[in-house]
Amino acid sequence: ASWHSNKFLDPVHDGAVLPILHLNGYKIANPAVLARIPESELDDLLRGYGHEPLHVTGDDPLTVHRAMAHALDTALDRIALIQRTAREEGVTERARWPVIVLRTPKGWTGPAEVDGVPVEGTWRAHQVPLSAVRTNPEHLRQLETWLRSYRPEELFDEHGRPRGQVLACVPDGDLRLGATPHANGGLLLHDLPVPPLERFAIEVDKPGETMHEPTRVLGELLEAVMENTSDRRDFRLVGPDETASNRLQAVYAATGKAWQAETLDVDEHLDRHGRVMEILSEHTCQGWLEGYLLTGRHGMFSCYEAFVHIVDSMVNQHIKWLRTTRKLPWRRPIASLNYLLTSHVWRQDNNGFSHQDPGFIDHVLNKAPEVVRVYLPPDANTLLSVADHVLRSRDYVNVVVAGKQPCFDWLSLDAARAHCARGAGIWEWAGTEEGTAEPDVVLACAGDVPTQEILAAAKLIRHHLPQLAVRVVNIVDLARLLPHEEHPHGMSDPDYDALFTPDKPVIFAYHGYPWLIHRLAYRRAGHANLHVRGYKEIGTTTTPFDMVVRNDLDRYRLVMDVIDRVPGLAVRAAPVRQLMEDTRLRHHSWIREHGTDLPEVADWTWNG
Amino acid sequence: ASWHSNKFLDPVHDGAVLPILHLNGYKIANPAVLARIPESELDDLLRGYGHEPLHVTGDDPLTVHRAMAHALDTALDRIALIQRTAREEGVTERARWPVIVLRTPKGWTGPAEVDGVPVEGTWRAHQVPLSAVRTNPEHLRQLETWLRSYRPEELFDEHGRPRGQVLACVPDGDLRLGATPHANGGLLLHDLPVPPLERFAIEVDKPGETMHEPTRVLGELLEAVMENTSDRRDFRLVGPDETASNRLQAVYAATGKAWQAETLDVDEHLDRHGRVMEILSEHTCQGWLEGYLLTGRHGMFSCYEAFVHIVDSMVNQHIKWLRTTRKLPWRRPIASLNYLLTSHVWRQDNNGFSHQDPGFIDHVLNKAPEVVRVYLPPDANTLLSVADHVLRSRDYVNVVVAGKQPCFDWLSLDAARAHCARGAGIWEWAGTEEGTAEPDVVLACAGDVPTQEILAAAKLIRHHLPQLAVRVVNIVDLARLLPHEEHPHGMSDPDYDALFTPDKPVIFAYHGYPWLIHRLAYRRAGHANLHVRGYKEIGTTTTPFDMVVRNDLDRYRLVMDVIDRVPGLAVRAAPVRQLMEDTRLRHHSWIREHGTDLPEVADWTWNG
Repeated sequence: ASWHSNKFLDPVHDGAVLPILHLNGYKIANPAVLARIPESELDDLLRGYGHEPLHVTGDDPLTVHRAMAHALDTALDRIALIQRTAREEGVTERARWPVIVLRTPKGWTGPAEVDGVPVEGTWRAHQVPLSAVRTNPEHLRQLETWLRSYRPEELFDEHGRPRGQVLACVPDGDLRLGATPHANGGLLLHDLPVPPLERFAIEVDKPGETMHEPTRVLGELLEAVMENTSDRRDFRLVGPDETASNRLQAVYAATGKAWQAETLDVDEHLDRHGRVMEILSEHTCQGWLEGYLLTGRHGMFSCYEAFVHIVDSMVNQHIKWLRTTRKLPWRRPIASLNYLLTSHVWRQDNNGFSHQDPGFIDHVLNKAPEVVRVYLPPDANTLLSVADHVLRSRDYVNVVVAGKQPCFDWLSLDAARAHCARGAGIWEWAGTEEGTAEPDVVLACAGDVPTQEILAAAKLIRHHLPQLAVRVVNIVDLARLLPHEEHPHGMSDPDYDALFTPDKPVIFAYHGYPWLIHRLAYRRAGHANLHVRGYKEIGTTTTPFDMVVRNDLDRYRLVMDVIDRVPGLAVRAAPVRQLMEDTRLRHHSWIREHGTDLPEVADWTWNG
Repeated sequence: ASWHSNKFLDPVHDGAVLPILHLNGYKIANPAVLARIPESELDDLLRGYGHEPLHVTGDDPLTVHRAMAHALDTALDRIALIQRTAREEGVTERARWPVIVLRTPKGWTGPAEVDGVPVEGTWRAHQVPLSAVRTNPEHLRQLETWLRSYRPEELFDEHGRPRGQVLACVPDGDLRLGATPHANGGLLLHDLPVPPLERFAIEVDKPGETMHEPTRVLGELLEAVMENTSDRRDFRLVGPDETASNRLQAVYAATGKAWQAETLDVDEHLDRHGRVMEILSEHTCQGWLEGYLLTGRHGMFSCYEAFVHIVDSMVNQHIKWLRTTRKLPWRRPIASLNYLLTSHVWRQDNNGFSHQDPGFIDHVLNKAPEVVRVYLPPDANTLLSVADHVLRSRDYVNVVVAGKQPCFDWLSLDAARAHCARGAGIWEWAGTEEGTAEPDVVLACAGDVPTQEILAAAKLIRHHLPQLAVRVVNIVDLARLLPHEEHPHGMSDPDYDALFTPDKPVIFAYHGYPWLIHRLAYRRAGHANLHVRGYKEIGTTTTPFDMVVRNDLDRYRLVMDVIDRVPGLAVRAAPVRQLMEDTRLRHHSWIREHGTDLPEVADWTWNG
């Protein structure tokens, strides 16, 4: 799919890409497919991709080097012409960018034959061609002949230093391969002009009185970032055709969707100079954004939560790269790779099981802790605060999981900022421990839907078990749960024990696979008291509340969990437990009859 | 890449694929790239892929249906001609298979315009075109007009049953879409003729006296399976050009590598009718194998461990499919999807960090437990036994992780069979608990390299701390660690406690990320005593032993772990602990000076 990137490349503002398809006939132990089809068929393919091929073929180094220099001149002239006509003459016809096809032998200028079998020009050249130089004198002789064929005496002086004529070919300053700022993007990076959040924040006087779609609110912030960078053009939103589906469409007021191919009257928001990049290939989105960040720009990747697994292997390598390069003092930090995962596991009411997978969090949390950050903002203002943080951050891979469905507004902007800075904290207004020495139970939550279920459970407990001292804890920054020796954001044991208690039952409602929370917290004193509910890979097409019921994450099940685990409640609260169980059964029949959730669930409010 | 599958399709023995590229102009909210390039450019692309395009374009249903029928006839005739000339006349020239490009409006025959904006033929048709039929009478009227446009009175009788002329179009028996056995592959499946393992097994009189490369031994078994299926042709080995690199090359004695493109004299094992399928695209390998299994055949996917993450998203969907379809009584079980992950994390001596990632195990273990199996055979005979099991199994995704480097032979075939049947067991010969009431410490291991380190640690303890009662436990089947309520292979608590003890320190050397073992075992009584070593994402290019040292999985560190955790040893065994620490330091200097591991490590044997 990446070959089709030329339909998204703006010759007026963007740079150019000159692909060089180097066909040496083989890959590892096999022929390369494109090396074994007729040249005319390969030309058809490259023209079909929208490129114009230039061929360089040969096995005589001097001839090939000259032909390659000529092909490069031709290609660069064509690129300059394309850019000039687009920039100065306003030509809008889609350009046919050049591509060079370079055909040389595999293992070129290496030993032609070793131990009686051909090596140069064959798949055998993929491995070390002379493997026994220490023990086989003939191999050693061949190695010497081979290395002498490069005439080192012409290249180096008697002290082994490159001669003047060699050094004369080396360019100066930033033109040196190792010094070009385009390969050390942090040198080119400017702070992103993120506007004050006050302009976009939801007013929250009391928790849970209004509802907003968090990603829609974020869209307005992103619109302002697009607006603020309209001259600099160093911020892009990439995604597999989901900007509108993920309710970020406010950005279209500031910029369009990059598009150089044919446009029809019915199209909307397509723009030759747009900075929203949509292509239905998560791989291409990831590749575009990685390249963009590595060359000193900023961006965000918006993706359906389940399908971001498509880039698992690519993000692995980006994290490994960040981990390795942050140790190099000369390499300057680059903007973080920011994922916005939405259309998440709990709200696939129409798409069902195939669209449900919260496991990308598990995937990235296996990787370098100094690079990886995972955020689960529970409402619109916390999403704004998290977005502000990740957009300004450097050298991280930030995974932000947030819903696009209407969600209660729990925190004011100030409260959200404080909560996000802590990463995890007590929501006093939701609990009932005030005036008690310590809580009887901790209700913890991470993620928007689990937060709502925990609050609904807290409200049920307040009504049915008013004597119980309940603490409600919300976790925005998942790595807070890790020991602080294992992650820079990890809590110390005293902090963890103070928040979750070392000995009280903790009922934890989590957005993803429940065992991830155990994997993060298994070293904590109170781990044996930790009971986690989450997505147990039970997915289908059903009502929103039925999804949480099927995975035992619903408010009624959470209340039952509290009754089961707080010492002394089992017998005393048995009638309440039975009521919860009956409500779950009533839910089961109701959705089958009505196709919608119980009115008490659908119309639930915190204050009602 | 999958478009290039035609270079691997054998017109003599294989079926055919007729791609239909349906361009309705859009994907979700955007134009489709291939719909917005000139038709001549699209033709170039398809010819470049090796196909010959046939076009069907229009918006009048009757005309398009007729044109499509004609195009299908033409395409099927061409396919028949290709197959006939290959099969009867021995034509070996690569075929140019047909492809149909079908262009019709998006939302075709739906409402042309809704609320004053065009819908049919635009991206808007991707969503529900009339969203307010319950509240908007105009929408309801449009819906009725739309549905009546299909003239239901001609299709159904007064009881709502399809009329005779409709039913007359429905084919009989296996030709019905819902009854074709090709879509219910289990109906076509034959048991795989796996030969007796005795032919391939390594003779093991005493543990650890010989070494073999496990995957090379497996290659001989796979050769026999290829040989036994040479007429049936229902077993394939797929992989991204790694069959030889993974030391499975014995299979080439029985079959070659599928290849229909140009062949040169220097090529080896390329074969128009080969059943090894190598393409440097893990996605295409996965897609090929899924299709092959779903249509009633067998196979194995051999892959570098780190790069199998490329198919994370695809295997998700296959597991979801298996979980869902196994509940359908009419759907017959299909052969399991078998992964052989080799060239694993511990032996990337040349490739380094980019090639190190044991996280596919974590990925699949998040998925349906009734489908997923993970095996870590510690030597050649256990690999044979595991392979025998997975090749015969049905409806699973089996992940087998095994090294290709020389590895000690620990178990005879009989012992290996018993050990694999148990999935986890005590290696009495390696421990020192005989004659004691219970062990002082359990040394557990899973994976070939961790097993060697645990045995080396056990030997050091035997020498330096002879009074210590040590139990050595090896785990082949990772899901054994899960509670049996959570996985069909999970151990009951009494079984687990008997094996690992409820209260003794367990030092566990694991192949992958150590926290996975905690995630599996966190509910067990002895969890607080469980101390796991594994890959902590510290990778580089170094000696084999330095890799385990850097990740604290080495024998010396494991002995220190034992001393640190067995009550009473800290003071008494302090000199031994110091010796272990000194040896690690000596290792550190030695590899820097010599570039190879300490002789006592490189030449280590269990019996020496």
